[in-house]
Amino acid sequence: MPDTSPNRQTASDALKAMENGTLTSRELVDACLEQSDARDEAVGAWIHLDPDLARRAADAADAKRAAGETLGPLHGLPIGLKDILDTSDMPTANGSRLHAGRRPATDSTVAHLLRKAGAVIMGKTVTTEFALSAPGKTKNPHDPTRTPGGSSSGSAASVADFQVPLSIGSQTGGSMIRPASFCGIYGYKPTFGCISRAGMSPLARPLDHPGIYARSLEDIARVGDVLMQPDPADFDMRAHPNGNLVAAVKAGAPTEAPRIAFVKGPMWTAAEPYMEDLFAGVVDTLGSSAKEIEMTGIFDQALDCHVTVMMANIIVNLGDYIRDTPELLHPETLRRTKDSFDISSEDYIKAIEFRDTIAAAVNQMFNNWDVIITPAAPGEAPLGLESTGNAIFQKLWTLLGTPTVTLPKLTGPNGMPIGVQVIGRVGHDADLFRNALWIEGAL
Amino acid sequence: MPDTSPNRQTASDALKAMENGTLTSRELVDACLEQSDARDEAVGAWIHLDPDLARRAADAADAKRAAGETLGPLHGLPIGLKDILDTSDMPTANGSRLHAGRRPATDSTVAHLLRKAGAVIMGKTVTTEFALSAPGKTKNPHDPTRTPGGSSSGSAASVADFQVPLSIGSQTGGSMIRPASFCGIYGYKPTFGCISRAGMSPLARPLDHPGIYARSLEDIARVGDVLMQPDPADFDMRAHPNGNLVAAVKAGAPTEAPRIAFVKGPMWTAAEPYMEDLFAGVVDTLGSSAKEIEMTGIFDQALDCHVTVMMANIIVNLGDYIRDTPELLHPETLRRTKDSFDISSEDYIKAIEFRDTIAAAVNQMFNNWDVIITPAAPGEAPLGLESTGNAIFQKLWTLLGTPTVTLPKLTGPNGMPIGVQVIGRVGHDADLFRNALWIEGAL
Repeated sequence: MPDTSPNRQTASDALKAMENGTLTSRELVDACLEQSDARDEAVGAWIHLDPDLARRAADAADAKRAAGETLGPLHGLPIGLKDILDTSDMPTANGSRLHAGRRPATDSTVAHLLRKAGAVIMGKTVTTEFALSAPGKTKNPHDPTRTPGGSSSGSAASVADFQVPLSIGSQTGGSMIRPASFCGIYGYKPTFGCISRAGMSPLARPLDHPGIYARSLEDIARVGDVLMQPDPADFDMRAHPNGNLVAAVKAGAPTEAPRIAFVKGPMWTAAEPYMEDLFAGVVDTLGSSAKEIEMTGIFDQALDCHVTVMMANIIVNLGDYIRDTPELLHPETLRRTKDSFDISSEDYIKAIEFRDTIAAAVNQMFNNWDVIITPAAPGEAPLGLESTGNAIFQKLWTLLGTPTVTLPKLTGPNGMPIGVQVIGRVGHDADLFRNALWIEGAL
Repeated sequence: MPDTSPNRQTASDALKAMENGTLTSRELVDACLEQSDARDEAVGAWIHLDPDLARRAADAADAKRAAGETLGPLHGLPIGLKDILDTSDMPTANGSRLHAGRRPATDSTVAHLLRKAGAVIMGKTVTTEFALSAPGKTKNPHDPTRTPGGSSSGSAASVADFQVPLSIGSQTGGSMIRPASFCGIYGYKPTFGCISRAGMSPLARPLDHPGIYARSLEDIARVGDVLMQPDPADFDMRAHPNGNLVAAVKAGAPTEAPRIAFVKGPMWTAAEPYMEDLFAGVVDTLGSSAKEIEMTGIFDQALDCHVTVMMANIIVNLGDYIRDTPELLHPETLRRTKDSFDISSEDYIKAIEFRDTIAAAVNQMFNNWDVIITPAAPGEAPLGLESTGNAIFQKLWTLLGTPTVTLPKLTGPNGMPIGVQVIGRVGHDADLFRNALWIEGAL
């Protein structure tokens, strides 16, 4: 018999149950908190969990529903926030001793929009230090000897462990999609500039993407539509994706098979040996509309380009901390940044221009293909907690700002989950969701 | 009796005459060439004038008109192109000995769109070396002992001297608006990203704006509408201005006086003493809807910010020439760039972020004001030809990508023209034109 505890339901199912009167937000929040009580000492997903605050917010949501008031699209749904997103009622430490106990005066735009939509913010999830690579306390819920991935470690683990149905993370290198793959959940990094970063700790502004975790594409779509609002406080906001994500999910998979390009690219050198057969099987299962295509030439330098753009911006944001108080930073943060203080503006600008050239080439690819698929990670979550794993399969798509989702459809030789990363054209997030539904159905 | 030679007409009047059958393109082109013959030894506006090519293009335009074929919006109108814009049938030397005799294989997007609209490309106008500050041979048509301004020296001088009714220039610092002011013509720098730079020699990509010179706002609008087309070959293209410029000019000045903010800003330290009274007079004439407002605080660092963004990008584009063949560059180019090789990526990125902060502040200003006015230059064109003058009154608006026009409405103590620079909100170029018409009418 399947476990039908409220905390195991998808957000969409829980929402339906609340609408039907068979579930209250309080019951749902209590079930999530119970799961955290039982499990989080082992998993370590939360850096700040506030049961009282969450219960009060749930009670308020239930009271509003009972009074027949207008409800937001996420009314009564619990959600976890990566601890780089400011919250006015909880500390936000950005994963750093430097900001321990920091109390922001106002909500980040993401927190504000979630509350406005009726969501119940459960607490703050563990992030690596400043969302770079120094790991926090989180373990992989499927195997505590393995990393959950990072930097959105707690956001991914909390959803995978049924402690919350939804959470927010972010990706600058590979911080959304890789943890989703390692933890076996759905992850979504929207087109760059669709979700405001106002009130989010900046790591590398041209690359920082907030993203969403859930246990279904429909759940992700519900949160996505809430968060994709223009915000003058984020100077990089771009036009919206092509349409409403919930409507795309309701429209469902396209009736004809999308043209699917499977790419290995320069990333493949990092793939585990078993990935060869695993993805050959994926392409085979997807049928004749899926083909492996080459991704060479300029793409060979794409990863270096990402490193230059990312590290130059990290120095802008963390440089003063590193110079002034290195003793308060994790050695991994110092190691990662030490060679980046001397990046010249010439090399930086050339990297930005090269990025645009690669983006144009990928845009061309989308004239012939509806989606690109590639692994969401080099393989299963690796053993050990000292590293959050290799971001190599995400960097190109982060650099280009293309929308990507990962589908938890594969299993590795040790029984650990592996995601299929599906990539769409910049600004065509709604199309991506429909095509991802088709792929999900086929796999 | 006014001189009614065809070359003295505005482009719009000439177009009407051609439509009425009282003027042919060939007659217009011949009149322009005659003026060049008589005057250009003194003015030096052209680096490459091709009378045969121009006459053949004019004849072809006339033949097409006679045959009743579909005509473009600039059909039969002669135009000059700054010699940083590639042309497939004329050399493009970018003002540099390094590129002397260079023959591009294809037209720049600007040249292509102009030809498609029926314009007759007369030739290439003198630019400073690589559109930076080393002057070419051009003299001010009103006084050969004075600079025409730069870098679009020949583009401005040719229009001011009635050698052509229209020309294209570009602005990275103050290269469109200042020459227009010095030469007494209309100049327009559109919102950043509205006109493609594909096939234009890059100086500083985040700042390079193609622009238009003419002897009326209506003339500029005609060319603007032709050139504002999306082009995937320019990665910085943005959304279009809010509507068609010709329609805006036809709609005319708003019936109610626009709210006009006169700003001096940190630029005012460079203004000639007589500018104080001159602009007090402007504000007075514009009436109660015009007020002087302060522009201090963050704006004090805006000019330094422009320098960092511009010089860092110039090294990207000219760095190899400077390193490899300094002997082939003008000493002024070497002097201007020598301290810019060591700009760090940290300083560059901080400058880009600071620009965004200033842009947000200016955007705020436009909630209270319809347009901003300020001088188009520190004063009259200075004496001497060794320098093209001070770009200080343009840099802020170039940095922010705001649309600006300059109106040749003032005269300095030596009888030389001075422009009134009118600045609009980013992306609101059509509104800017209507408000500029109101100001033009009032002055």
